[in-house]
Amino acid sequence: MQDLRQAALEIAQTALAAVDPAECVRRALREIDLGKPARIFVVGAGKASALMAQALEEALGDRIGAGWINTKHGHCMELRRIVCHETGHPVPDAAGVHGARRIAQQAREASENDLVICLISGGASALMPLPVDGITLEDKRAATDLLLASGAPIEELNCVRKHLSAIKGGRLARLAAPARVISLILSDVVGDDIGVIGSGPTVPDATTFAEARDILRRRHIWDRVPAAVRQVLSSREEELPVLQNVQNVIVGSNRLALDAARNCAQSLGFQTLLLSSAIEGEAREVARVHAAILKEVRETGNPIAPPACILSGGETTVTLRGSGKGGRNQEFCLAAARAIEGLEHVLVLSFGTDGTDGPTDAAGAFADGTTVKRAGAKGFDVTRSLDENDAYPLFRTLGDLLITGPTGTNVMDICLLLADH
Amino acid sequence: MQDLRQAALEIAQTALAAVDPAECVRRALREIDLGKPARIFVVGAGKASALMAQALEEALGDRIGAGWINTKHGHCMELRRIVCHETGHPVPDAAGVHGARRIAQQAREASENDLVICLISGGASALMPLPVDGITLEDKRAATDLLLASGAPIEELNCVRKHLSAIKGGRLARLAAPARVISLILSDVVGDDIGVIGSGPTVPDATTFAEARDILRRRHIWDRVPAAVRQVLSSREEELPVLQNVQNVIVGSNRLALDAARNCAQSLGFQTLLLSSAIEGEAREVARVHAAILKEVRETGNPIAPPACILSGGETTVTLRGSGKGGRNQEFCLAAARAIEGLEHVLVLSFGTDGTDGPTDAAGAFADGTTVKRAGAKGFDVTRSLDENDAYPLFRTLGDLLITGPTGTNVMDICLLLADH
Repeated sequence: MQDLRQAALEIAQTALAAVDPAECVRRALREIDLGKPARIFVVGAGKASALMAQALEEALGDRIGAGWINTKHGHCMELRRIVCHETGHPVPDAAGVHGARRIAQQAREASENDLVICLISGGASALMPLPVDGITLEDKRAATDLLLASGAPIEELNCVRKHLSAIKGGRLARLAAPARVISLILSDVVGDDIGVIGSGPTVPDATTFAEARDILRRRHIWDRVPAAVRQVLSSREEELPVLQNVQNVIVGSNRLALDAARNCAQSLGFQTLLLSSAIEGEAREVARVHAAILKEVRETGNPIAPPACILSGGETTVTLRGSGKGGRNQEFCLAAARAIEGLEHVLVLSFGTDGTDGPTDAAGAFADGTTVKRAGAKGFDVTRSLDENDAYPLFRTLGDLLITGPTGTNVMDICLLLADH
Repeated sequence: MQDLRQAALEIAQTALAAVDPAECVRRALREIDLGKPARIFVVGAGKASALMAQALEEALGDRIGAGWINTKHGHCMELRRIVCHETGHPVPDAAGVHGARRIAQQAREASENDLVICLISGGASALMPLPVDGITLEDKRAATDLLLASGAPIEELNCVRKHLSAIKGGRLARLAAPARVISLILSDVVGDDIGVIGSGPTVPDATTFAEARDILRRRHIWDRVPAAVRQVLSSREEELPVLQNVQNVIVGSNRLALDAARNCAQSLGFQTLLLSSAIEGEAREVARVHAAILKEVRETGNPIAPPACILSGGETTVTLRGSGKGGRNQEFCLAAARAIEGLEHVLVLSFGTDGTDGPTDAAGAFADGTTVKRAGAKGFDVTRSLDENDAYPLFRTLGDLLITGPTGTNVMDICLLLADH
């Protein structure tokens, strides 16, 4: 167990290092030809945008003419040429709108021989809100709330929201045209859809105003959204030809972290299997499937034989039933612990790459075949803790939390299943 | 798609053939040395016991002295030397007790130089009920119901039930001693625990009367179970030394079916990966994990590259939300269909090996990247059908049900994920 835990820690650290925002930017700059632009502007938003901007300043120095990024309160860093501006998250605020306006202005300023580097990471959508002329942040939020209440799926929400934004769905790139735009994107969404990450400010939106209107009508909320929203959606037309000035590059993602983790596991002598970087679903149920695979590894050497490291990534969800303390990764590990009770020479580690699992100070937790028994000896009933969504006190008491502190990055979660002989 | 479906059908048929009860018995007889017993008695119970008995009669002919098996109503077959007796399932009945008594008598009759072959398959526990002297079937059921209502897990239920049975938990083998006992077991439980399949009539039970009493006391129902139950649990002592006369052989299981399916898939040119034969969990959530893996296959060639066949087995559950018609495999496929919408060159097949998925005439269903769209064209909303647990009408309309009819076997469910270039 102790050896497996050491191995898991090393693999996890390697994964995190591979998606460190600064490292992602440095790696991208080695691979992308920036050309010889007259001026370089830097814009963008996201929880990792300050770290990305810092790496960009280190690499490009005085070649950067000016820049403006929005990031979350408490996330700013000292930058030399780029303005770091703190804005509201997850609820957009006036500071966000102010910053987004400056970003739009920066993009507009760029001309044909200039380069605009756009830095996008998780949270960009809320951190960089810019309603189109004629509607307010409140109008936009009212429309969004009505859509949510009507049961609209995320695709419909995005379609409507993008058509109420002056910056999303490729509109930021259009403002920058004819300047060249390179967007460096740290993906925090399952499937790495660049149109979804930060609502795709540099990614042409394939949906139309007519579709946005249809959605509101079909959901019977057309008459209930603010008049200004109806006005905007009715009076405008598509202005988004194919954006030929744009290069969108995913510089960090869950898959990239998993690849690095796999390489590390191989170097430690494990056979490896990368299950998927697109895992979704209820944490405790997803955990049972993972546990079933781990059992099979031990019992029959399928899908791979020990020493084995099976990797997966994505983001699970937790349906709250109780009032305990925990996070989706800790809940995953608790459910896994119950399913692998008594199984020897195995270890499960699940953690959020941002270092924060739910409202706790832990990134995730470790579970093994002894977790249930050890928890019992400390007075914990794993089933009851699971019923109460109360994984944190249990794992804290066992010393089985993974605590990394905030990592500055976010490419969702990673799960490692280790099995030895 | 059509090719993948043909392949899936062939793989599924191969899997089913490998766990056909008669084939399982024939295969076991080729591998087990029966010795030269003076007489051979055949006993047992289960939904597949008649088919197993028939194969045994074909192989052993007049070497069988006598026999008695209990099976479900409608499942009897014409046998020459073995009595085929129909009893209640899933609720045990008086016919079951009558048959179990005859089975116990048969076992008792066997002496040192005789061989007792015991045939166990799914349903055996309910089909062969024999309360110990002093308590009735009703007493036993009352105790079971109280335990269930108290939230007792299956391990505690089994412990109490085995101590109220004259036949379970190894007690049938003890009746047969000193005769040799060979138990041929068709496993219908996750993990293939022979003590759990049919409540293990030939498998020594490690739990004790003291534990059974403790369970009832801890659950605060000791004073509420029938007095006869208290009497039995208080007055008896363990009488189960290690059963040296017994050989328990799993002749068919989900894992065995998966192995056969994998061999078939390989012969068809697929790369294969056996995920696990112990899959459990909420069907729709388990499906999302499988879908995520299938997506990864198509996008990055992980965990294996196309042409790929990923296999898993086990038994999921469905938490009923709506009032529609379906089964766990159909619900699995519906959830998978939603998650793989638009994905090309893939196919999902999930089916119950008994040929019956929920209260439907289908064994399971096929899903692919076009399911959602094709269903929409026929007026079905996949999300609504899922909310209503109403997969059957949708798949029936699409012609995407797998209909095998009752197969006579049951080794839980099998899921195939196919991906081509």
